[in-house]
Amino acid sequence: MTIKPLGDRIVLKVIDDVQQTQGGIFIPDSAKEKPQKGEVVAVGPGKTMDSGEREPLDVKVGDKVLYAKYSGTDVKMDGVEYKILSVKDVLAIIE
Amino acid sequence: MTIKPLGDRIVLKVIDDVQQTQGGIFIPDSAKEKPQKGEVVAVGPGKTMDSGEREPLDVKVGDKVLYAKYSGTDVKMDGVEYKILSVKDVLAIIE
Amino acid sequence: MTIKPLGDRIVLKVIDDVQQTQGGIFIPDSAKEKPQKGEVVAVGPGKTMDSGEREPLDVKVGDKVLYAKYSGTDVKMDGVEYKILSVKDVLAIIE
Amino acid sequence: MTIKPLGDRIVLKVIDDVQQTQGGIFIPDSAKEKPQKGEVVAVGPGKTMDSGEREPLDVKVGDKVLYAKYSGTDVKMDGVEYKILSVKDVLAIIE
Amino acid sequence: MTIKPLGDRIVLKVIDDVQQTQGGIFIPDSAKEKPQKGEVVAVGPGKTMDSGEREPLDVKVGDKVLYAKYSGTDVKMDGVEYKILSVKDVLAIIE
Amino acid sequence: MTIKPLGDRIVLKVIDDVQQTQGGIFIPDSAKEKPQKGEVVAVGPGKTMDSGEREPLDVKVGDKVLYAKYSGTDVKMDGVEYKILSVKDVLAIIE
Amino acid sequence: MTIKPLGDRIVLKVIDDVQQTQGGIFIPDSAKEKPQKGEVVAVGPGKTMDSGEREPLDVKVGDKVLYAKYSGTDVKMDGVEYKILSVKDVLAIIE
Repeated sequence: MTIKPLGDRIVLKVIDDVQQTQGGIFIPDSAKEKPQKGEVVAVGPGKTMDSGEREPLDVKVGDKVLYAKYSGTDVKMDGVEYKILSVKDVLAIIE
Repeated sequence: MTIKPLGDRIVLKVIDDVQQTQGGIFIPDSAKEKPQKGEVVAVGPGKTMDSGEREPLDVKVGDKVLYAKYSGTDVKMDGVEYKILSVKDVLAIIE
Repeated sequence: MTIKPLGDRIVLKVIDDVQQTQGGIFIPDSAKEKPQKGEVVAVGPGKTMDSGEREPLDVKVGDKVLYAKYSGTDVKMDGVEYKILSVKDVLAIIE
Repeated sequence: MTIKPLGDRIVLKVIDDVQQTQGGIFIPDSAKEKPQKGEVVAVGPGKTMDSGEREPLDVKVGDKVLYAKYSGTDVKMDGVEYKILSVKDVLAIIE
Repeated sequence: MTIKPLGDRIVLKVIDDVQQTQGGIFIPDSAKEKPQKGEVVAVGPGKTMDSGEREPLDVKVGDKVLYAKYSGTDVKMDGVEYKILSVKDVLAIIE
Repeated sequence: MTIKPLGDRIVLKVIDDVQQTQGGIFIPDSAKEKPQKGEVVAVGPGKTMDSGEREPLDVKVGDKVLYAKYSGTDVKMDGVEYKILSVKDVLAIIE
Repeated sequence: MTIKPLGDRIVLKVIDDVQQTQGGIFIPDSAKEKPQKGEVVAVGPGKTMDSGEREPLDVKVGDKVLYAKYSGTDVKMDGVEYKILSVKDVLAIIE
């Protein structure tokens, strides 16, 4: 079973911050709204613009991204936690 | 009696999550706003864009979709529970 | 005396749900916001679009429609209850 | 002294519902937000659209209209009660 | 010292309602939001439209206007009370 | 050190109302939201319009302006109080 | 590990106000909403405009900027505090 997000939505596999310390330490500031990490596993076709064309998404499958903690909707599938959210809630790509 | 939704609305037959375990287990995260499943049984003509044309809908009859729990309006017809909602409240298509 | 609605408004004759059981049973879900039925008796000319043309309405006189319960404004004329509401508050046409 | 409304505003002479029973009885539903009747005595030039042209108003001087009760601003001039309101708050023309 | 309003703002000299009874009696309805009278003493250049041109203002210097009571900002200059407000808050021109 | 405001923002040097009585007395009405005076010391490039061009600002360096009291952000630099605010919060130019 | 911000977002290295006194003293007004300083370390590609092109950002890597205190999202990476925020929340560039 696969999830095909609609519009400008994407599907992320949530990355656990605790297992995150190899290859650059990423520690969000605990007193503020924390961003979280995820890996993009599916992207929507983009929103339809006034011209009738699709607005391209700035992320692609495989990208690791930071997103605001309370954005999007969580689903579990085959025991893995996914998140469906608008690409507008993605703050940055991490490389 | 059939329902023809207007604008960008669609009609869904609600799928009961409890009978949902064959062919990939789908378990929404209980602590968050839960998405729910439905099967598309009718789609509207799309909203009229500034150009005068209809904006195409990204779902078609027969699609199984995830949607936010509290979106749309519920109706019962011949004992079956349906939901009328905007296609913007559909998160993803499940295949 | 007749009512000519303005813009994208329509006038509905309210259909009583209790007399509604022949020809397909329509029972709205009582725990949610209930849609109601009405028959279209007049339609406005449509809103003026940026191009200066009128946006066409998706309903016509004689259509039976579902609409959200608390939308629109009620008027009584010659003892009959009518409702004036925007076509955007019409959920679907029933056939 | 005359009043020339600006933009999409119109000036109405308020019609008292009590003196309203000849020629078709109009009784607004008392439990809901009541519409009221008025006669159009002046209309504005219309709002300027993006094209620079004026958006035409759908009512003209002499029209009898229904409008939402709490819309607009009341003024008295030479002992007569008038109402200045946007044409968007006019629900329908009565004929 | 003169005031040049920006955008679609205008400057009004406030007219005291009490000295207002000659040449047509204007008595605002006391139970509702009262409009007030002023004389236009300066007008802005108009807002810049998407086309890059200025949207023309519907009032000119010398016009007597009705405006909503709590709109705009009051200033006193050389002992005279002025009001700076958007032309959108002007209800009508009185002649 | 200089401040270059972005978009449609400008930088004002705040003018103290108390030292303001020569050359025309300006006394804001104390019971209402008071406008305040400032001298423009820097202007931004203007917002980018849909056409890709910059929307021109209606004020220039050296203009004395009235602005709403609680708009903008205050900064002190070399002991002088400045205010960074959007040109939309400027009510008028004083000459 | 590097951060590539999306849309009109930028990444700032936060500059501590206390170590800020050489080369022009910058002291924000303590009773108001304080702006803060940061150095731009990465900029996004800009938002997609209706024309399909990217809206250019008004800041570049290396710029020192003032931004509103409570805007954006904080992250720590390799022990350095960064902030991801929209360029619209940048008030001015300091030179």
